[in-house]
Amino acid sequence: MTFKVGLLGLGTVGTGTAQILLDATQRHPLLKELEIHRVGVRSLDKSREIDLPADLLTTDLESIVTDPNIDIVVEVMGGLEPARSLILQAIAHGKHVVTANKAAIARYGAEIFTAANEAGVYVLLEAAVGGGIPVIQPLKQSLGANRIDTVIGIINGTTNYILTRMQNEGADFAEVLADAQRLGYAEADPTADVDGLDAADKIAILASLAFGGRIKLAEVHCEGIRQVSAADIAYAERLGFVIKLLAIAKRNTVSTENAPEQLQIRVHPTLVPKSHPLASVNDVYNAILVEGDPIGQVMFFGRGAGAGPTASAVVSDILNIAAMLQANLVPVSTQPTQAAHPLLACSHQHYSAIAPMTDLVTRFYARFLTKDYPGVIGKLGTCFGNHQVSLESVVQIGNQDGLAEIVVVTHDVPEGNFRQALEEIRSLSSISSVSSVLRVL
Amino acid sequence: MTFKVGLLGLGTVGTGTAQILLDATQRHPLLKELEIHRVGVRSLDKSREIDLPADLLTTDLESIVTDPNIDIVVEVMGGLEPARSLILQAIAHGKHVVTANKAAIARYGAEIFTAANEAGVYVLLEAAVGGGIPVIQPLKQSLGANRIDTVIGIINGTTNYILTRMQNEGADFAEVLADAQRLGYAEADPTADVDGLDAADKIAILASLAFGGRIKLAEVHCEGIRQVSAADIAYAERLGFVIKLLAIAKRNTVSTENAPEQLQIRVHPTLVPKSHPLASVNDVYNAILVEGDPIGQVMFFGRGAGAGPTASAVVSDILNIAAMLQANLVPVSTQPTQAAHPLLACSHQHYSAIAPMTDLVTRFYARFLTKDYPGVIGKLGTCFGNHQVSLESVVQIGNQDGLAEIVVVTHDVPEGNFRQALEEIRSLSSISSVSSVLRVL
Repeated sequence: MTFKVGLLGLGTVGTGTAQILLDATQRHPLLKELEIHRVGVRSLDKSREIDLPADLLTTDLESIVTDPNIDIVVEVMGGLEPARSLILQAIAHGKHVVTANKAAIARYGAEIFTAANEAGVYVLLEAAVGGGIPVIQPLKQSLGANRIDTVIGIINGTTNYILTRMQNEGADFAEVLADAQRLGYAEADPTADVDGLDAADKIAILASLAFGGRIKLAEVHCEGIRQVSAADIAYAERLGFVIKLLAIAKRNTVSTENAPEQLQIRVHPTLVPKSHPLASVNDVYNAILVEGDPIGQVMFFGRGAGAGPTASAVVSDILNIAAMLQANLVPVSTQPTQAAHPLLACSHQHYSAIAPMTDLVTRFYARFLTKDYPGVIGKLGTCFGNHQVSLESVVQIGNQDGLAEIVVVTHDVPEGNFRQALEEIRSLSSISSVSSVLRVL
Repeated sequence: MTFKVGLLGLGTVGTGTAQILLDATQRHPLLKELEIHRVGVRSLDKSREIDLPADLLTTDLESIVTDPNIDIVVEVMGGLEPARSLILQAIAHGKHVVTANKAAIARYGAEIFTAANEAGVYVLLEAAVGGGIPVIQPLKQSLGANRIDTVIGIINGTTNYILTRMQNEGADFAEVLADAQRLGYAEADPTADVDGLDAADKIAILASLAFGGRIKLAEVHCEGIRQVSAADIAYAERLGFVIKLLAIAKRNTVSTENAPEQLQIRVHPTLVPKSHPLASVNDVYNAILVEGDPIGQVMFFGRGAGAGPTASAVVSDILNIAAMLQANLVPVSTQPTQAAHPLLACSHQHYSAIAPMTDLVTRFYARFLTKDYPGVIGKLGTCFGNHQVSLESVVQIGNQDGLAEIVVVTHDVPEGNFRQALEEIRSLSSISSVSSVLRVL
């Protein structure tokens, strides 16, 4: 039984996907049952790394998603539109969909999965998070027995590459970014990566799977790495930490019995203890740490981007759908007794409640420049104390232009209290500036 | 639709499994459809951590595997017999089976999976390797697009705990083993763990999934950690390595076009470069590193044993089967049009060809005690050279009882050549002893 694949996009990931589909040797035997039927591209004239019969290519993408011969549509074009419309059209035409498009899924997931459930088709998206690292399917299937408490990921390769180089070279952000752009590790417009937006899309997807509720992207608190300085990295190192851009989704401990359950969901640079499993995830590698009951900690690690890893995830999703097609496990209207596979279809309808950041309880790292230091540590301590912020350490770490530099690490405190203390500290005449504020894992 | 589970065994893992099944809150909703129908135990009188209605328990295990009401049999009793016979009986009675029994699967997998395919039932075994770490299902499903080249695992928690403590404390094997036994991290009879037999069972299972061919357990080369000394750990450290018990399965590069493909499959203590992702996997943690084309390296990390993690894997397998039952995806004889899910059923029939260890190409570490050292390094070098063994470093590292201690690290060499050189070296009058020989990753 052969299954026909329609590919939307023949860029890096599309080419990687086609390469696997054309060379089944030593891969899963089911790959031999897959056939590239049509490939949608922007231009027919472009020279390409891959040798495909010219008549497979078309610029008419709509003709692919409506083609009655096609079983599985693979969307690897990226961007919001026309990707969203094409995915919806494919679903409406009874096609199963595989997508690598985290931006579209994070924004239009509710619409897409509702349509898929109605049409009786699957939408799989392993490639949307963590490149080739299997994390979506484990969350859906292998970890289903667990009550998941926390998902923490290093899920943006560009920022992890930049932070790793800043750490290794003692260099500042702007200089490493420029070099990363030159080397192709960062885009010309690096906003989506360095401002944490890409990681926000991905943690929204992971959280919806881990906690079984939809996530409104606007509710994901998001800070990027532009404000991380070489000085902070050096001070963090002396205190036993490395700085990583973490994407965190966490079930809040319910304080009172009738309080509704809330999630924390946030992306920000974070001081990570060197002994933590995520601390040694460097360069463009990604890792996702899941904590649950009763499994404890489990971590998935690998390359988070690139043609090969991403195509691995795309094709594995295609195989999963082909396997269900071969086994007749497709809840289409022609088979009314057939239910969708309950672990692979999207079952949740409600939105998760997200806790406000002021309620977050976490440790903080802050660096201050102070004018005259005799007594200034006392003043800082008093301000923090006024707002019930207890301190783990206060260290005068150096001098800069005649100013003393003081680094503070707090115990776990509510973020609201910490921010209030910070406001009061900013008004002190002996404080020249609050150079940086970072959260600590 | 409720699915009835029959549990064989109520030890650590069985109790953990029952605890999850009895408390579905905040886990996958499908868990609510699972019901513990019967539990087979050795004694009805034993006091237990878990509160189960007394009439669920029975000492008649056969009555469970033949009970027409039971859909899924969960074998968590361990050991070879009666586990094997009960699994086969359950299959013959049309039950799906979930097992954590690596020893039985590594030995009787061919028999068990052949019977399962004939009966149209699934046998799932996520818990057999790496405790709760999802690795079996990713190998079957999420990595199917890849041509897998290598699987390297730290898959025995007891030996990793012992080696980590030896490393941290500078202590010798016997002393740490005794303490680990006292603390319950090692069994009274530690043979299966410290001699590598448990890891051999597990790598045989992983290799059969990764490379799509059955493995004869007797062909897995297996060395344990009894001969690893505190001195070797200290010297390895100075050279930039840690010593880990690795289980390795690898596709051999085919030298000539018509040569049949062979696998390496072996368990032995190994010097691992400190920068390698496996080097920082410590204590009872396990990790499995998979390398494939095009995914590159991907690693799975977590607790490799214990009631919670293992029960997480067992129940996730139960959920997978329940999902297929709910979606009617069961190839039983009453549904003749229904095929088995091609990614979840076992499809391979042949045995993989295993390369002899003498053909292995690897780096070696060796430590020698020599009688008189002027000129002795030259003699060592000549012997190695006679057998085309080229050396990366030769270091005289210390003195012991008037003898010089010399540590050699080779480049990649065929193991056969290295062993021949070693024979020649043993016969040299200036060599007092070959204190240790270890492979280097």
